[in-house]
Amino acid sequence: MANIIVVAPHPDDETLGCGGTLLRHARAGDKIHWLLLTKMTEAQGFSEARILARDQEITEVSRRYGFVSVNVLDFPCTRLDSIAKGDLIAKISGIFLTLQPEVVYLPFCGDVHSDHAVAADAVMSCCKWFRNSSIKRILAYETLSETEFGIRPDTLGFRPNVFVDIGDYLERKLEIMQIFTGELGEFPFPRSIEALRALAMLRGTTAGCQAAEAFVLLKEII
Amino acid sequence: MANIIVVAPHPDDETLGCGGTLLRHARAGDKIHWLLLTKMTEAQGFSEARILARDQEITEVSRRYGFVSVNVLDFPCTRLDSIAKGDLIAKISGIFLTLQPEVVYLPFCGDVHSDHAVAADAVMSCCKWFRNSSIKRILAYETLSETEFGIRPDTLGFRPNVFVDIGDYLERKLEIMQIFTGELGEFPFPRSIEALRALAMLRGTTAGCQAAEAFVLLKEII
Amino acid sequence: MANIIVVAPHPDDETLGCGGTLLRHARAGDKIHWLLLTKMTEAQGFSEARILARDQEITEVSRRYGFVSVNVLDFPCTRLDSIAKGDLIAKISGIFLTLQPEVVYLPFCGDVHSDHAVAADAVMSCCKWFRNSSIKRILAYETLSETEFGIRPDTLGFRPNVFVDIGDYLERKLEIMQIFTGELGEFPFPRSIEALRALAMLRGTTAGCQAAEAFVLLKEII
Amino acid sequence: MANIIVVAPHPDDETLGCGGTLLRHARAGDKIHWLLLTKMTEAQGFSEARILARDQEITEVSRRYGFVSVNVLDFPCTRLDSIAKGDLIAKISGIFLTLQPEVVYLPFCGDVHSDHAVAADAVMSCCKWFRNSSIKRILAYETLSETEFGIRPDTLGFRPNVFVDIGDYLERKLEIMQIFTGELGEFPFPRSIEALRALAMLRGTTAGCQAAEAFVLLKEII
Amino acid sequence: MANIIVVAPHPDDETLGCGGTLLRHARAGDKIHWLLLTKMTEAQGFSEARILARDQEITEVSRRYGFVSVNVLDFPCTRLDSIAKGDLIAKISGIFLTLQPEVVYLPFCGDVHSDHAVAADAVMSCCKWFRNSSIKRILAYETLSETEFGIRPDTLGFRPNVFVDIGDYLERKLEIMQIFTGELGEFPFPRSIEALRALAMLRGTTAGCQAAEAFVLLKEII
Amino acid sequence: MANIIVVAPHPDDETLGCGGTLLRHARAGDKIHWLLLTKMTEAQGFSEARILARDQEITEVSRRYGFVSVNVLDFPCTRLDSIAKGDLIAKISGIFLTLQPEVVYLPFCGDVHSDHAVAADAVMSCCKWFRNSSIKRILAYETLSETEFGIRPDTLGFRPNVFVDIGDYLERKLEIMQIFTGELGEFPFPRSIEALRALAMLRGTTAGCQAAEAFVLLKEII
Repeated sequence: MANIIVVAPHPDDETLGCGGTLLRHARAGDKIHWLLLTKMTEAQGFSEARILARDQEITEVSRRYGFVSVNVLDFPCTRLDSIAKGDLIAKISGIFLTLQPEVVYLPFCGDVHSDHAVAADAVMSCCKWFRNSSIKRILAYETLSETEFGIRPDTLGFRPNVFVDIGDYLERKLEIMQIFTGELGEFPFPRSIEALRALAMLRGTTAGCQAAEAFVLLKEII
Repeated sequence: MANIIVVAPHPDDETLGCGGTLLRHARAGDKIHWLLLTKMTEAQGFSEARILARDQEITEVSRRYGFVSVNVLDFPCTRLDSIAKGDLIAKISGIFLTLQPEVVYLPFCGDVHSDHAVAADAVMSCCKWFRNSSIKRILAYETLSETEFGIRPDTLGFRPNVFVDIGDYLERKLEIMQIFTGELGEFPFPRSIEALRALAMLRGTTAGCQAAEAFVLLKEII
Repeated sequence: MANIIVVAPHPDDETLGCGGTLLRHARAGDKIHWLLLTKMTEAQGFSEARILARDQEITEVSRRYGFVSVNVLDFPCTRLDSIAKGDLIAKISGIFLTLQPEVVYLPFCGDVHSDHAVAADAVMSCCKWFRNSSIKRILAYETLSETEFGIRPDTLGFRPNVFVDIGDYLERKLEIMQIFTGELGEFPFPRSIEALRALAMLRGTTAGCQAAEAFVLLKEII
Repeated sequence: MANIIVVAPHPDDETLGCGGTLLRHARAGDKIHWLLLTKMTEAQGFSEARILARDQEITEVSRRYGFVSVNVLDFPCTRLDSIAKGDLIAKISGIFLTLQPEVVYLPFCGDVHSDHAVAADAVMSCCKWFRNSSIKRILAYETLSETEFGIRPDTLGFRPNVFVDIGDYLERKLEIMQIFTGELGEFPFPRSIEALRALAMLRGTTAGCQAAEAFVLLKEII
Repeated sequence: MANIIVVAPHPDDETLGCGGTLLRHARAGDKIHWLLLTKMTEAQGFSEARILARDQEITEVSRRYGFVSVNVLDFPCTRLDSIAKGDLIAKISGIFLTLQPEVVYLPFCGDVHSDHAVAADAVMSCCKWFRNSSIKRILAYETLSETEFGIRPDTLGFRPNVFVDIGDYLERKLEIMQIFTGELGEFPFPRSIEALRALAMLRGTTAGCQAAEAFVLLKEII
Repeated sequence: MANIIVVAPHPDDETLGCGGTLLRHARAGDKIHWLLLTKMTEAQGFSEARILARDQEITEVSRRYGFVSVNVLDFPCTRLDSIAKGDLIAKISGIFLTLQPEVVYLPFCGDVHSDHAVAADAVMSCCKWFRNSSIKRILAYETLSETEFGIRPDTLGFRPNVFVDIGDYLERKLEIMQIFTGELGEFPFPRSIEALRALAMLRGTTAGCQAAEAFVLLKEII
């Protein structure tokens, strides 16, 4: 029974990247935690209705996963790169010290969205063992609509080395994803049911199962 | 109307990697050529029946694509790495000089199969402009069951930068693939109809179409 | 007849990186557009005379190329890294939505100048097909005096895979470059006529022509 | 209780790379197996006495680890690169099919010794799930005197992401290493007790323990 | 007799990364300079006592090395990423123009600490020959507790290619390090005497000496 | 006064890659040695006249450089990849033990020519300090017509970090190159006087001199 935390720059990243894996953790009796880095605010131009709807989505999604805690930082959406890294690290590290996670899921640092890249950098800084000694395993997930659009030719792409069989959880993952109505679109839009299913199948063929989620292991201590 | 050549270490690689793209070339009026590097032989332990069946597959597949020429070198299957690179290059370069291709499709050099890696190296050596001046565009295709199993941690993975919309050709590609009965399996086996379809869909989401094939551009001269 | 846009952090980058290619596009009947990201301002300490001279250079250079439009954003020169990525993306994406380019030329993300690196990141974020569906081809150009001074040992260097024959356009490119009097120097200064000619010749030898410009293809959709 | 196999091109590689980890596996009740790829032969110029001594070393080392099986292929030492990859794969895959390992430790493909590089390539080819479905975790170990002398500037170096605490096993690892008398030297020779201890300490500081062995995870299926 | 400068984001980085090399330079008669980028301030919450102690440490450490000059910029510690790169470059470049160094030691750009990454970027921008023509050799040092915790999977790690024998200087380096009492900890903490010694030994085995410091050469002009 | 050795797979590689640098070494009083790995033989189909002419070229070129020794191994040209690496290493290492070089120049391992790639691998294996303790500096040179045609997308390209000012030696390098009449061609052929001059100028602009040769430093021990 381990403490697991998924860091999501925005709600839905956790589902796109590791929804099935989180459900499997929960089924196995692990305690799963959700860390959301950003928040919609009226100051950013989001309507009260949109903000309220988002809060309801978060509540419902959390219920479905069975998250033991939902932790929402109030950094501004799409503007994480304007926050000093030190401030991000202080907040994230504080959460880690409180929750004592053994396993951390974070976005891939090569994602095209600057929120993802910044989030990944900040989380990695929090993972030194002498800062947060509980952490034993750190994995980057892929986010359809961001990871595959990271086309910097001077860095390496997402090259997964960990595959989690989510054959028993794919349908529930897709149901949860549909709670984020505003984020989904019609195929070939990448955040679509068909695209998510195709990715899960493809990762499955690489791992020998019907459906899988794929990760890059950044560090593991045994 | 261009000359196109696809280099396949073994029959079916051309279909797995760029079947849809070849069909689209043919439809556009391009002349497409097939270069097969290896041959099953009785000396290697293949039965006469298997060899005959393979020849019939090649004939039928060629007919379906409308290949203008099928060129079969007789290097031994699964043992390309025991051939001096110079001998491979001489043979391949000879074909190129004869056919004068403008576009070359070759396997990805990071594929786990040594035949693919060796083939890629040899073909790249043939692509100097002062050796084969006809060549203007060189692309590496991905081969389900080989490319995604290339897990060398000291090299880069397959990171495609060219996406060809094969929405109108996917079904025919899958039909052709089924001619290679011995190579196909049940999903999640990577050489299965479902896996091929999932890959095409996934590449499609990255390119904004229903189905795509993806390539790494090695060189283009305009 | 395609819509082409070149994104230049500062005037002269478009010429250093793809002057010949732009001239060739124009000759071929393509519509070429110029997007300048930064502007000299008195607030930054530039004299009125310098600002005026710069404007005249831009006008004259635009005339020579035959740009269909010149789009100047007013971000501060040498300080793009202090702008939230979201603001850059909003402005650039707006231009793209208006002009509907099919081909985008952008600086190389590994250039040592932070304006280039930031510009490249922002432009890549604008190139998702579901954001700007007109874009079919994205290429990074090299900028003498910036690209070859990018010496980060933890990233990859500029490794071109597209070569454009500019044999018929090199002299006009060099003439245009001389309009930017303040940017040119004596060889071996990298922004010198001799250096530009040597680079064009070297890229030419790799492509089999008298002079070429070289690019890294980031993405192409066919 | 898992089946573990370590692939060593030559005896002592298993100890240098993962001696402590193997001891820890054995203590945990896992069944550990040793696969040696090469053999000294008189044909290669090794004396009968040397060959006999080597056999005795293997026997003694195996006893110390508690290997459940020792599997010795008779490929020629320092000449693995002259063997067709297909022949290596056939032999190694046969062993895997018999022993049904879940975890495979192999040398790093970037090691300067061609035996290591070839061995790594061949083992990776054996690790497709549809070839050897028992394999769930594949890790590359580092070999002092080979890994750090891999200086190819066109590939990536050894960058470990898995750290195994061997604090309780370091001394026994060093004792076992001393059985290979002919392979050890005086510090600063890399195969020396002091160098092995320094490496273990350094990997320990990265993982928060007194001593560790470090690996690159190539693939894991969960 | 050369001018040498070491750029340290924070005091102790110069010692961790190249303390022995600096002592060797000094012994050889080279003039060594120290450039500190950040300063503790009360505004950041550091106590007057801590600031005073830090100043005394700097003075004492400088005396031990025999630095010809100590140059302290007053950028805020842990917040270099909130400074416009242009401002950093202006200050650092000014120091370089004054001191005319031939050799520059800088932190590794892949270090997990954002101060290190930003510092490295800024310093590299100052090293164009037409900006600071004195500079002939640029080397990145490794910083225990930062470099080995840089775990971005989309960039390359620290892969040293220059090894400096510090066998005669290791003990003095360790003595100097102990002046920074607040930065040291108990092994396996990475900034501990044992960890520093293990690293020096390990780098020594790669270079054939009792102790060494390792660097990545970024550029050398001969 | 140092011992310098340049390893050339074929005569002319030493000149293309480091002709100017060798002349500068000689002028500085260093002893320069030439190691040629391959030999034309009648068995390979070269005419007696061609072989004789080649020998005369070698003699004349050696005289011009002032090589202290010319060492010719008799491995077959274009077929180095069919030689067991162990045999190459034995021969090269023997030469190194005899000549005791401090500095080694070798081809770039990413060159498209398999002879270059194999030669680079073999030489790197000979450069362990406990094998050949004289070696203190190892540099890979670039070979026009081979290095820039290395287009493997899964490896890194030639990214030089050492630049040697050959302003005083370029003309003599070009004169020597013209002795290899059969290897030169008309521009834009890469082995042409104009191309060599353009490359030297371009490398010069990066280093602040009229002409330079560029290298990748693989290892240096100080």
